[in-house]
Amino acid sequence: MRIVVLAGGIGGARFLRGLKEAAPEADITVIGNTGDDIHLFGLKVCPDLDTVMYTLGGGINEEQGWGRAEETFHVKAELAAYGVGPEWFGLGDRDFATHIVRTQMLGAGYPLSAVTEALCERWQPGVRLIPMSDDRVETHVAVDVDGERKAVHFQEYWVKLRASVEAHAVVPVGADRAKPAPGVLEAIAGADVIVFPPSNPVVSVGTILAVPGIREAIANAGVPVVGLSPIVGDAPVRGMADKVLAAVGVDSTAAAVAQHYGSGLLDGWLVDTVDAGSVRVVEDAGIRCRAVPLMMTDLAATTAMARAALELASEVRA
Amino acid sequence: MRIVVLAGGIGGARFLRGLKEAAPEADITVIGNTGDDIHLFGLKVCPDLDTVMYTLGGGINEEQGWGRAEETFHVKAELAAYGVGPEWFGLGDRDFATHIVRTQMLGAGYPLSAVTEALCERWQPGVRLIPMSDDRVETHVAVDVDGERKAVHFQEYWVKLRASVEAHAVVPVGADRAKPAPGVLEAIAGADVIVFPPSNPVVSVGTILAVPGIREAIANAGVPVVGLSPIVGDAPVRGMADKVLAAVGVDSTAAAVAQHYGSGLLDGWLVDTVDAGSVRVVEDAGIRCRAVPLMMTDLAATTAMARAALELASEVRA
Repeated sequence: MRIVVLAGGIGGARFLRGLKEAAPEADITVIGNTGDDIHLFGLKVCPDLDTVMYTLGGGINEEQGWGRAEETFHVKAELAAYGVGPEWFGLGDRDFATHIVRTQMLGAGYPLSAVTEALCERWQPGVRLIPMSDDRVETHVAVDVDGERKAVHFQEYWVKLRASVEAHAVVPVGADRAKPAPGVLEAIAGADVIVFPPSNPVVSVGTILAVPGIREAIANAGVPVVGLSPIVGDAPVRGMADKVLAAVGVDSTAAAVAQHYGSGLLDGWLVDTVDAGSVRVVEDAGIRCRAVPLMMTDLAATTAMARAALELASEVRA
Repeated sequence: MRIVVLAGGIGGARFLRGLKEAAPEADITVIGNTGDDIHLFGLKVCPDLDTVMYTLGGGINEEQGWGRAEETFHVKAELAAYGVGPEWFGLGDRDFATHIVRTQMLGAGYPLSAVTEALCERWQPGVRLIPMSDDRVETHVAVDVDGERKAVHFQEYWVKLRASVEAHAVVPVGADRAKPAPGVLEAIAGADVIVFPPSNPVVSVGTILAVPGIREAIANAGVPVVGLSPIVGDAPVRGMADKVLAAVGVDSTAAAVAQHYGSGLLDGWLVDTVDAGSVRVVEDAGIRCRAVPLMMTDLAATTAMARAALELASEVRA
């Protein structure tokens, strides 16, 4: 079975661990969001790709969900001593090495997809990880600062401002001119099932879908497309997805997110059991819906979620 | 008193600590060797400039003489895990930050001299540190590998090969087209005394003198030029200076090094007391010579050496 997953960071990465358990024989291709990539200290940092790679490769800081295990922060402390920031972005020493290798390879002319493949040679994530695009896409968020509207990098909004101010708009800058990375459209066309994990529907999955050609390829793949709600009981399971959902005019409910993707894209949708009441609303919108536990509390729970998603895909196919 | 010092790495840096003690009111300008600069992991590394900066700024690993105190090596270990080397060059995590800041500033268009000044803002070395040139100069060493002669970067010869093979030639590649960095010729022209510390006469002081204009400026400055022998009792005090001296046809003796600089450049020369027998030879070559203890065992000994150098300069002037 060939499964394609559109993944953001922590939520997507954790779901993938369950999916690998649920379908150990499957050939899994992960199309990773690069809209939250950022250039820091002259280095190219790809938080979502790295979170997937570290999580599946056994290098992740389990508690925090991002960054490396057993991490130290000497480089960062020294950069701060030189007056070089930003200090709000937590780059650890071990993590720095990844960005140094990536930046060096990009500088030598390799596209991000080739660099990601090379980094995964070490981590052996057990999936094929492809960035959504080799072209630069940078998600910006429109916020009001001291009474003036300005666009800040997604990381500044998310990490520095902790999404504490209203997001008036979320724009994946450059997405309209970006091309899917080599292998992305081929993987979608060859998939048996396509999964949207409980990643952020706006700044993770939404950014991937904003790359021209990807949404169309998924809609026309002719295979089940199933998703898992990142909203449970009208609130994001983790993160601050409600803030960016509001920016695109979508309510923070499991049903509203399904309708946001729409029946033209989505065939099946899993909501949490606490949202069982919204199953009807989603099905009325033309999307097959089931209510199952959606809290990724441990690997067993996550594996059950992945299994439920694959079962829903089978149902949809039948 | 305005003192100009041509410095390499460890020997030059340690001597400068003594000089600052011996002449606390002096205005000291250090012209630093950049011939052993190397690009590693996409970063610009300037070992000699950093050794001077860390030593005078209180950040040096005292025991080893280079690199940062309380250093960790997580970035390097991770790079090795990615299969990215070289592993023979010891870059620590704290040290990495310096190279990241430097590389970022160079990438933003600042010349190395401006970058060095910015880095020194943090370290406050108490001297003005200027690279010999903003242009790229890279010292290569001709060696025989598996029966074939090839040129290797100085760091490869020195650190990886530990100078264990014969050096057939030492070439400061690019020096002939390099221009002295802003401030270098002005500092020399305005100096009251010019000092060659016990740095390597070939790959440290020699490389600086290879930048067109610097040797001439020193010879024509009309002020005392005094040096301290890095050779004591026919062997280098530290390092492997004898190996590269042989490559340029100079014996490893205090007298031979003085003659190598020559009376056209050098007015005074200090040899160690164990080499008192060579004072006559050096003086016969037209260079005022004194024998004093030249082992930099501690700050007091180093300060006495610096004081002796300044006294010799006074003698020469009179």
